[in-house]
Amino acid sequence: MTERLPRTPKIPYGGDHNPEQWPEEVWDDDHRLFTQAGVDTLTVGVFSWSLTQPAEDTYDFTTLDRILDRAAAEGRQVCLATATAALPPWLAKKYPEVNRTDFEGRRHRYGQRHNFCPSSPAYRRLATALAGRLAERYARHPALLAWHINNEYGGTCYCDLCAQAFRDRLRDRYVTLDTLNDAWCTTFWSHRYTDWAEIEPPNALTEHWRGSDHTAFQGTTLDYFRFTTDALLGCFLAEKEAIRAHDPATPVTTNFMGMFRPLDYHRWAPHLDFASWDSYPPLDAPPTWPALAHDLMRGLKDGAPFWLMEQTPSTTACRDVNPLRRPGELRLATLQAVAHGADAALYFQMRASRGACEKYHGAVIGHAGRDDTRVFREVAELGRELTLLGDVSLGARTPARTALLFDWDSWWALEISDGPSRLVRYQEVVHAYYRAARDAGADVDVVPQTADLTGYDVVLAPALHMVKGDLATRLEGVASRGGTVLATFLSGRVDEHDRAFLSDVPGPLAPLMGIRVDEWDARARDVVQPVEMGGSTHDARLVFEIVLPRGAEPVATYGADFYAGTPAVTRNRFGDSGGEAWYVATALDQPGVDDVVRRVLTRHDLIGPYADRAGLETAHRTAPDGTRLLFLLNHTPDPAHLTAHTTATDLLTGKRVDKGAPLTLGPLGAAILRTQ
Amino acid sequence: MTERLPRTPKIPYGGDHNPEQWPEEVWDDDHRLFTQAGVDTLTVGVFSWSLTQPAEDTYDFTTLDRILDRAAAEGRQVCLATATAALPPWLAKKYPEVNRTDFEGRRHRYGQRHNFCPSSPAYRRLATALAGRLAERYARHPALLAWHINNEYGGTCYCDLCAQAFRDRLRDRYVTLDTLNDAWCTTFWSHRYTDWAEIEPPNALTEHWRGSDHTAFQGTTLDYFRFTTDALLGCFLAEKEAIRAHDPATPVTTNFMGMFRPLDYHRWAPHLDFASWDSYPPLDAPPTWPALAHDLMRGLKDGAPFWLMEQTPSTTACRDVNPLRRPGELRLATLQAVAHGADAALYFQMRASRGACEKYHGAVIGHAGRDDTRVFREVAELGRELTLLGDVSLGARTPARTALLFDWDSWWALEISDGPSRLVRYQEVVHAYYRAARDAGADVDVVPQTADLTGYDVVLAPALHMVKGDLATRLEGVASRGGTVLATFLSGRVDEHDRAFLSDVPGPLAPLMGIRVDEWDARARDVVQPVEMGGSTHDARLVFEIVLPRGAEPVATYGADFYAGTPAVTRNRFGDSGGEAWYVATALDQPGVDDVVRRVLTRHDLIGPYADRAGLETAHRTAPDGTRLLFLLNHTPDPAHLTAHTTATDLLTGKRVDKGAPLTLGPLGAAILRTQ
Amino acid sequence: MTERLPRTPKIPYGGDHNPEQWPEEVWDDDHRLFTQAGVDTLTVGVFSWSLTQPAEDTYDFTTLDRILDRAAAEGRQVCLATATAALPPWLAKKYPEVNRTDFEGRRHRYGQRHNFCPSSPAYRRLATALAGRLAERYARHPALLAWHINNEYGGTCYCDLCAQAFRDRLRDRYVTLDTLNDAWCTTFWSHRYTDWAEIEPPNALTEHWRGSDHTAFQGTTLDYFRFTTDALLGCFLAEKEAIRAHDPATPVTTNFMGMFRPLDYHRWAPHLDFASWDSYPPLDAPPTWPALAHDLMRGLKDGAPFWLMEQTPSTTACRDVNPLRRPGELRLATLQAVAHGADAALYFQMRASRGACEKYHGAVIGHAGRDDTRVFREVAELGRELTLLGDVSLGARTPARTALLFDWDSWWALEISDGPSRLVRYQEVVHAYYRAARDAGADVDVVPQTADLTGYDVVLAPALHMVKGDLATRLEGVASRGGTVLATFLSGRVDEHDRAFLSDVPGPLAPLMGIRVDEWDARARDVVQPVEMGGSTHDARLVFEIVLPRGAEPVATYGADFYAGTPAVTRNRFGDSGGEAWYVATALDQPGVDDVVRRVLTRHDLIGPYADRAGLETAHRTAPDGTRLLFLLNHTPDPAHLTAHTTATDLLTGKRVDKGAPLTLGPLGAAILRTQ
Repeated sequence: MTERLPRTPKIPYGGDHNPEQWPEEVWDDDHRLFTQAGVDTLTVGVFSWSLTQPAEDTYDFTTLDRILDRAAAEGRQVCLATATAALPPWLAKKYPEVNRTDFEGRRHRYGQRHNFCPSSPAYRRLATALAGRLAERYARHPALLAWHINNEYGGTCYCDLCAQAFRDRLRDRYVTLDTLNDAWCTTFWSHRYTDWAEIEPPNALTEHWRGSDHTAFQGTTLDYFRFTTDALLGCFLAEKEAIRAHDPATPVTTNFMGMFRPLDYHRWAPHLDFASWDSYPPLDAPPTWPALAHDLMRGLKDGAPFWLMEQTPSTTACRDVNPLRRPGELRLATLQAVAHGADAALYFQMRASRGACEKYHGAVIGHAGRDDTRVFREVAELGRELTLLGDVSLGARTPARTALLFDWDSWWALEISDGPSRLVRYQEVVHAYYRAARDAGADVDVVPQTADLTGYDVVLAPALHMVKGDLATRLEGVASRGGTVLATFLSGRVDEHDRAFLSDVPGPLAPLMGIRVDEWDARARDVVQPVEMGGSTHDARLVFEIVLPRGAEPVATYGADFYAGTPAVTRNRFGDSGGEAWYVATALDQPGVDDVVRRVLTRHDLIGPYADRAGLETAHRTAPDGTRLLFLLNHTPDPAHLTAHTTATDLLTGKRVDKGAPLTLGPLGAAILRTQ
Repeated sequence: MTERLPRTPKIPYGGDHNPEQWPEEVWDDDHRLFTQAGVDTLTVGVFSWSLTQPAEDTYDFTTLDRILDRAAAEGRQVCLATATAALPPWLAKKYPEVNRTDFEGRRHRYGQRHNFCPSSPAYRRLATALAGRLAERYARHPALLAWHINNEYGGTCYCDLCAQAFRDRLRDRYVTLDTLNDAWCTTFWSHRYTDWAEIEPPNALTEHWRGSDHTAFQGTTLDYFRFTTDALLGCFLAEKEAIRAHDPATPVTTNFMGMFRPLDYHRWAPHLDFASWDSYPPLDAPPTWPALAHDLMRGLKDGAPFWLMEQTPSTTACRDVNPLRRPGELRLATLQAVAHGADAALYFQMRASRGACEKYHGAVIGHAGRDDTRVFREVAELGRELTLLGDVSLGARTPARTALLFDWDSWWALEISDGPSRLVRYQEVVHAYYRAARDAGADVDVVPQTADLTGYDVVLAPALHMVKGDLATRLEGVASRGGTVLATFLSGRVDEHDRAFLSDVPGPLAPLMGIRVDEWDARARDVVQPVEMGGSTHDARLVFEIVLPRGAEPVATYGADFYAGTPAVTRNRFGDSGGEAWYVATALDQPGVDDVVRRVLTRHDLIGPYADRAGLETAHRTAPDGTRLLFLLNHTPDPAHLTAHTTATDLLTGKRVDKGAPLTLGPLGAAILRTQ
Repeated sequence: MTERLPRTPKIPYGGDHNPEQWPEEVWDDDHRLFTQAGVDTLTVGVFSWSLTQPAEDTYDFTTLDRILDRAAAEGRQVCLATATAALPPWLAKKYPEVNRTDFEGRRHRYGQRHNFCPSSPAYRRLATALAGRLAERYARHPALLAWHINNEYGGTCYCDLCAQAFRDRLRDRYVTLDTLNDAWCTTFWSHRYTDWAEIEPPNALTEHWRGSDHTAFQGTTLDYFRFTTDALLGCFLAEKEAIRAHDPATPVTTNFMGMFRPLDYHRWAPHLDFASWDSYPPLDAPPTWPALAHDLMRGLKDGAPFWLMEQTPSTTACRDVNPLRRPGELRLATLQAVAHGADAALYFQMRASRGACEKYHGAVIGHAGRDDTRVFREVAELGRELTLLGDVSLGARTPARTALLFDWDSWWALEISDGPSRLVRYQEVVHAYYRAARDAGADVDVVPQTADLTGYDVVLAPALHMVKGDLATRLEGVASRGGTVLATFLSGRVDEHDRAFLSDVPGPLAPLMGIRVDEWDARARDVVQPVEMGGSTHDARLVFEIVLPRGAEPVATYGADFYAGTPAVTRNRFGDSGGEAWYVATALDQPGVDDVVRRVLTRHDLIGPYADRAGLETAHRTAPDGTRLLFLLNHTPDPAHLTAHTTATDLLTGKRVDKGAPLTLGPLGAAILRTQ
């Protein structure tokens, strides 16, 4: 997969800038403060469609010219948005088809953002034209660093245009209705289609009840998820093509949203020059939650660095409760992003909006325009540090020997499944295994199920509900080479159409795992089943598969109910090279997952030196010139007194650290050790 | 009420079979496994409309012929469905009127099942035609045992066709608008109708808010519930008539859903040849919950046996959490059904669907097609036991001396009432009294309010919110003959139009109860009021009626609040034969209800021999030849060591049990004692 | 502001009467019972449109004539409703435009009440015509005491007629689109309007998600709230004008609903002759909750008395749980209303409806028509007491020296804000400060932000999110004169268009408060932050503003988190007369608010004599003749043994009370002391 990152002398630092919302005298203040804060990069034009094109036949680049010229004059780089993520009012009024029809089947009128139908010819034509005009005008502008197409693509439309596009896509894929009927199991509930026109988008007026996860036909709904992914991707590609007609070289991206269920980013990845994303972790998420998203984003382009396109310097606004980032948290989160592969650190937003729904969203510059706020001081200090780092981390890669499979299809299939339990959430299962590996000190590549797995010692496949193509064979290959594969409950259940495998569970993974699962219990969240593992007892919840070993040996056993004494975790020796396949048949609590994963990592000598220090994160990157960087991140509010396990230089302080010498990180402190 | 049950030599055993979903080689496996499991009866064709009639003018019976012929060849009986419960796509596309308009006023497009408008001429015509074609073809097929019309009728439509049908029905019933205005109390809120066309179906766009239970006009909503019951019944009757044109004799049923609020099954009962139902008790329901539903179903046809048309052999799929039936639970639940009057024991489903929303629903045969799973073994063992039983229980009746009134109108009226408390749920109140009687060892007939009550010693009338016709007189008759009538809070409140009685509460029941209720308190669920009864203190909640005795004497009194010391339970001696009327003015907890009900049953010597054994259920049936069967069911996970209270033979073991001798039931164990 | 109250010799007593729902023989019973209960005033005709105008061209006053004539004959006064709050069915059918389109964009069909579109020409024409006809006929009727226009105005419509009316209103207000674009900050999210026709009402199909409080454009939504207030007011004014054409003198009102968020009653107040409202406090609300609403209603007409137009004598019906008013509660609540300025005490309803959704709503006369119920006895006893009181309290005013600002705009802006916390509720914040002042014994005027503040020693401005006009200057004036102003967190944030002030928080209040707020933390409800204040520790929750004193001194400090030790409450000396400005930067618990407010009141000697008696309420009124009344209300279930702090006569007992002598109030007891 080719990648092309913007070329910069250091980590680009800055963020979304909307000077069009302000009189020009405010621009002066902005640039003065940017300089003060080490800001060198601005994302501009994201919501400027109505400004730049006030009517169908009228383009007005006056403001945008001034913004870019001023940026160039100030020596700042621009990530230029195509402005197509929010419709201008005139467009919605003139072409009502551009407004989305929602899950309830209601055509919307004008409002909000993310409001366009991806199948609308009017939208496609006008968005593409705008992107082309922008490219034509600014392709050679000295400030231009990268193209930012649209913004946070997302949302689904159920209009008649989309219905037709869906049918066209189905016809392309299935060719005949017999094939489609077979794939979707339409004989069930008398759904055999006899005409393509009979197929409707699956929504509240057709196959769904209780919202988007409850469908009568999982195959239909899955295909609509895929259709939506591709329909929006089609919009992206059309704009990209329009840009490339005028600008063959400047890197193009669009900002993703990490673990965003509606879009399968793996289908998008080949079409981006570089990945970028907006990080807004849930309240009280552990540090491994954004880390997992970083690693997922890094995995989009085979491990190439990505841009952190947005984060808040202080608070969000859209949540019910919007806590402050405490002193030091912003710096730590930013360095964590760099540790995981970010080659840029940008904010939403540079100056707080005066009105509308994001006026309380955190900003580098608040409504009073001050430079003596705590937040501005922290931003400026971080700007200073990033300047200090220079280019050392740019283009660096993560030398991971552990892979974790992240699969949108499995996510979708698992969460739209009727039975065994709506309480199992894909992200939670995946995160538990990711966290276990990371807390143990292993670098982890989060990769699609199509990834080349030959380079990994350990492959984690939590909740791999769907197994497609030659994946089972490739996983067997890992074990055959002496590696370890770990799968969990609810893996290996369905094929690409969400049809159950007509064989023992876990389907194509059964030979590798050496087990057979005939039945599975599901219980309410408050039912806890003890699991005994090598002297420890862990809690398990939600789903309890009953495992019959067929070659595998028990590693842990259930401690209660009629399946007491049967295996809850198994290990199967596979192949002649000492490879193993582990199966975890229930949702263990985090200590239980930690216990299993550390046993696996230990086999491959992948436990890090600080694995026993809670809240101390380590991450490695290797720069193009071979420089090895070790990031130490203290996520606790207390100082971390460590012993250096290698001799290195801390790039943040410039100080040398000797192997075996004490190494202290302050509360929320960090070190970036150059070990070579 | 006439009834006609299918004639079989033993309890039919088997369930829903969908071979049309599978290639024919799988059919061989199916039949091999059926034989292994003692399966003799298959429900077929339930969702085969799109298969059998792929276009309006095309019928194709090829597959159905093969299915029935194969069944006959294998010596199995078929319950043949008319396939009209799920529309084929072409029909929904060609006649959009057939798609339902939901409570929100939205015409649906094609999807799911239970998706037809009961007032649609196109649906009526085509469904009836299909039923007729099937009857014409298979009336004399050797495998045919019974007709299964549609499937789990339910759902409501609010389209213009239904609006017109509703108005027509109202005109038939009320004749003049004055009568209707009076019945619905339309002077309230300025609703006096001056033209039938002004009347709209009560839904989210008219009289309702916060869903289907919150209505401005209870009378209107009640009439729409009745309309829906009758509209769907009309569909059933049309299909039945089409069948009878070709097949005058084969029994006809449709599968009910037990305590299913939307349809008043008592209005349907006369039109079925025999009742049948699908039992999927709620998670963690006590055994009396499905038992109540069994007894309700038995009460549909004056105590005649019914069919258990569906149950899961292992798990459901459609719930948020779908636990496994533990070892022995399936057997116990099945024998419980037989104990309560089931003359058939069928599963949904014989083989697990490969895809769509029921693929994880439990099945006799799983996706791997194995006969060595726990579930298959239990099913097969139960098949062996049912074969052993032979015909001994077929046609048997329950010799109950206790009746419980179950009234859909009261259910509806109570739960759509504004005030006094939305927390009172009809099923919970009814179940508490049913459970108390059953746990005390009494057989209970669950009967409509129109039932002949002359044969009962005890009549329980919990939450009898609506009192119609001569019911009050008939209840007085019970007491006049020396029997006992028990009513509770929120009984005797409204007439058939949901108009309050203009007299003291409990309205027509007041003379019998010997009390007057002027006011009633309602409190949040966490407010507990102590009730003192003969030395015991019970908890009461939700509703506290303040009772003024007018002839009755207190049995229990409130222990707190300003009504402390006033009666919470009263007893009124009525008539000259020692009859009594009991009134329970508040929602007692289960021990409180048990206490009251046992006092009542004791008067009539209706406490069973094992009334003090928690979890030990007893039930009697008397066969047509006079054979008396006593079912003993141990619902606990521990062995039950009993002393036989009569001499008998256990039909499951063939062993004789002597009166006074020890009799042990294993965990979840059962005995069927032939005592004569 | 002019006011005109109905002239009566005593407190009007009675309530909603709907004889049109009953045969005339019931009317005899009604009047017999009214006389027995001291009822002299009846509200009639509220829902009589369909009765009085059964078709567009047909008016029929027969029933209304009889009702009014009978009232006159019985010597009772009538508050006559114009009947326009619930459409007759023929109107909805004939002019579908009159039916509202809801927030989801769905045009309703006929049902419920509050069901008319305020912009519908057909509704306006017919409602106005009906009001005119009624005025023409009854203006000189001897029973007529007051006009009651419509009923409980409320609800919002989103139809195309309203959309157009909204645009017209916007054009009137903003004149140019540039001004509107600036006010709404439409550059954000590409919303710059280029044609008035592009503007849509903000609802679920346009700017909103997750309901009416989540909007992309706060400015738009705020303007729609204002539009709705004015659109309904327009309906009121049209009816009033029609009445005035025939009846220049009889006072006109409409019944409000206290703290009712959808309508800014301050915009209505000038147009009412007198205010009236319906009091149905939430379950378990403390007595200060209805008291706050009473004082808000009294504040509508500059402190003039209002009518208590509805309250239940016993229970509500529409809630999930509808508890009884316990013995004595009705009397105490009624006397509390009088204490706060009520010059009438009316019930909903006089006789319980027979059917529909209010049949279980409490009534003076129940379904059995008895006069020997507890409720009837309490109503009659209270009637006797009010007769005893005579005219002593009529026209009396409250001599408050404390004002509390209540501002619908701030309420709206706060609760539709994205960030910092959806958990902050305007009413809760306001009530906490009101309660603190009232529990301390201070009389409080609840006034609009435009009120003349020169008469007050203390002005409380909790959650004054929006600051408009010269309010900041007027607040500074209070402090300049030596008074005290108190503001809280989330005050001084936005201008009239919900645009953040481009200055330090709290915006225009910053100079007065002497502080600067750069940032604010928000946390989940279970996060408690200790606040130290003069030796006490209070709990704070939800929002924690970080305050930099700029002249102010700390009164209390945070006890935890990174802002530990910084001010949570500040006091700023302002001006030369000893005035002060207090700022409370977080949501203190009630003891914390009490602590702050009592410190403020103490400065001005406003702590009452019984401030330390929990549940003992005091309130003063001064009659037009100078008579001073002190109401003592014991809200506890125990007797209150007090020492009289002044010599007076208890008007309820006629007994003299000497200063210093013991004075006992029974449980829920009251005294009305004439102290002059």
